[in-house]
Amino acid sequence: MAVNLPRGFRAGAVRAGIKPSGKPDLALLASGLPASWAYAATQNRAAAPSIHRGRALYAQGGPLRAVVVNAGNANCATGERGFRDDFLMAELAARRLGLPLEEVLTASTGVIGVPLPVEKIEASLPQIALTPTVEAFAEAILTTDLVVKVAEREVAGARIVGVAKGSGMIHPNMATMLAFLVTDAKVPQEALRASWRGVVDRTFNQVTVDGDTSTNDLALLMANGAYGEVPLGPFFEAVEEVARELARKIARDGEGATKLMTVRVQGAATEEEARRAARAVAASALWKSALYGNDPNWGRILAALGNSGARFDPLKVEIRLQGIPLYRGGALPFDRERASQAMRAEEVEVFADLGEGPFSAEAFGCDLTEGYVRINALYTT
Amino acid sequence: MAVNLPRGFRAGAVRAGIKPSGKPDLALLASGLPASWAYAATQNRAAAPSIHRGRALYAQGGPLRAVVVNAGNANCATGERGFRDDFLMAELAARRLGLPLEEVLTASTGVIGVPLPVEKIEASLPQIALTPTVEAFAEAILTTDLVVKVAEREVAGARIVGVAKGSGMIHPNMATMLAFLVTDAKVPQEALRASWRGVVDRTFNQVTVDGDTSTNDLALLMANGAYGEVPLGPFFEAVEEVARELARKIARDGEGATKLMTVRVQGAATEEEARRAARAVAASALWKSALYGNDPNWGRILAALGNSGARFDPLKVEIRLQGIPLYRGGALPFDRERASQAMRAEEVEVFADLGEGPFSAEAFGCDLTEGYVRINALYTT
Repeated sequence: MAVNLPRGFRAGAVRAGIKPSGKPDLALLASGLPASWAYAATQNRAAAPSIHRGRALYAQGGPLRAVVVNAGNANCATGERGFRDDFLMAELAARRLGLPLEEVLTASTGVIGVPLPVEKIEASLPQIALTPTVEAFAEAILTTDLVVKVAEREVAGARIVGVAKGSGMIHPNMATMLAFLVTDAKVPQEALRASWRGVVDRTFNQVTVDGDTSTNDLALLMANGAYGEVPLGPFFEAVEEVARELARKIARDGEGATKLMTVRVQGAATEEEARRAARAVAASALWKSALYGNDPNWGRILAALGNSGARFDPLKVEIRLQGIPLYRGGALPFDRERASQAMRAEEVEVFADLGEGPFSAEAFGCDLTEGYVRINALYTT
Repeated sequence: MAVNLPRGFRAGAVRAGIKPSGKPDLALLASGLPASWAYAATQNRAAAPSIHRGRALYAQGGPLRAVVVNAGNANCATGERGFRDDFLMAELAARRLGLPLEEVLTASTGVIGVPLPVEKIEASLPQIALTPTVEAFAEAILTTDLVVKVAEREVAGARIVGVAKGSGMIHPNMATMLAFLVTDAKVPQEALRASWRGVVDRTFNQVTVDGDTSTNDLALLMANGAYGEVPLGPFFEAVEEVARELARKIARDGEGATKLMTVRVQGAATEEEARRAARAVAASALWKSALYGNDPNWGRILAALGNSGARFDPLKVEIRLQGIPLYRGGALPFDRERASQAMRAEEVEVFADLGEGPFSAEAFGCDLTEGYVRINALYTT
């Protein structure tokens, strides 16, 4: 299905020859109007030049008009040269669109430690045809993702469209999570920024495929106001729905994954503890392996909760898997075969009530499979 | 090779029928003299009754005379009953040895959520023959470990013997790390306790097999003084050597592991940051997969360092793998085939200099293999 961008946005992509596969790998997203924007980026100390530049633009506080993204090369750990190349990529996009340099954000994903082929970007950027649809952009930002990830919502006549790439790996390096949400709603930059951090914390930051955070992760929200004002409560709810849908698509498409895991934790003493507890379960290698093997091994869920740092008394905890109660202050009798059958699904839900307080959270993950190991080990040598 | 315990210690084991395999699974370690002791236990919120009891004994501050350990059942998440059963196991051992209850520590490892078969322990404990050798004890505490783990040192005539079990899993649950170090040196309890935390932080707490911390982990050091006083500096050095050797043996015998990884980090701003940085590399699923595939993928090492929370400037970082420089503020040219060949070893060393300060640390891990996934997934259903 073709998804149109909100009013005033256009996007496109081209084959620049950065991906060894020869697939489209250079993408542009632009707004006809200056957009307010919010941004969240990786905390990795080895963050790429594009992340450093994005943070600087964010701090300046001006509007944003465009994003240029390349896939196939993360332009990370490329020394001083990497900063110059990132600047050049921004400059080429700004020139192409006739925009001031500080209104163009850059993003890169792909191999680490290899200089960015700026000459390929220079040669290909002018060939990008900008259209009102999102597909070409959504495809070009992928690395080894298996599927394109797009989500959309409407709110009081305005539209929100989000696109993301997830945890694929490109030879010989790491996953990057990129997410771009654009809307034609008119939202002041302060309001956008005040809410975005929370949305990201509840969605993209609750995705875990293998516990490794990339050097290039970012999540962007742009509002160009082409439609006009909308009530902010419903607007941010819709934004969060788009972000959540993308987060789940990223988890489902994790490397080697055969199923999506949603962990819902309630009864935590604080929201942060709820989030940590949910993430700990979604990230546990032991539990992820059991999930793969359809083994209703609740002891691993309990142990992961116990490692999360969230406070609880094991005698008050309740654990359910696909709705089946497995543990309530102690092992419950349950039909192991039936529970295992219930795990043979595309989506598996883990529920835990910590019995400690009023806070809840979700996390999104996938199973750990031999495929994950093969993709990441038996592939370059 | 038979390893004798230090003077005044005896140990033994028996088949109590707790392990489904029928192997020895109930073990006793006892000192003829009251011993000073130090102890470190899991921080897991879902800690087993044996851990709660051990912490209480520790806080009382009295001497220790014996440890009773069962393998095959963790007696964890077994509700109120679990606390009673743990108490009963201690009582049975105290009666067998003619000791006060509060001088007997308990430890359990194995399946979670299944009541401890105390009647089997009651029937079998009297049959344990105590001998001056460590082998029977060392074997009985194992679960799916492939090898017995023993280490010993002599210091100024006194002896230190350590035994550990590592990250095997017993159906249907999780790994536990247990370590018991005993010495006939005479060391005041305060000195023992003051140093033990640091030793554990630098050794056992730097082992990572899959990032999951068990509900039953503990590390114990007992000094019965049967030999007499020794200089404390060399003594604690020797204790740390024993602990380090055991930690490395645990990592090497990680589930599915084909090789031992030692990560040495230097140049960190604080000791804690050095430890976190080293652990992050040893724990990275992406890097562990590359290690398995003999892929000298330094980008994953850099990204793991970046995720550790340790401060550094990527332009000042240096990374070496098996002594081969791969990165110094940027990618270095290196012979990829030669580096890959160098990784085809039983032991692989990762070295990173963060260029930020004077602190260094080690961490111990293993590769992530299809075997790990198989052991933990494709095994119960």
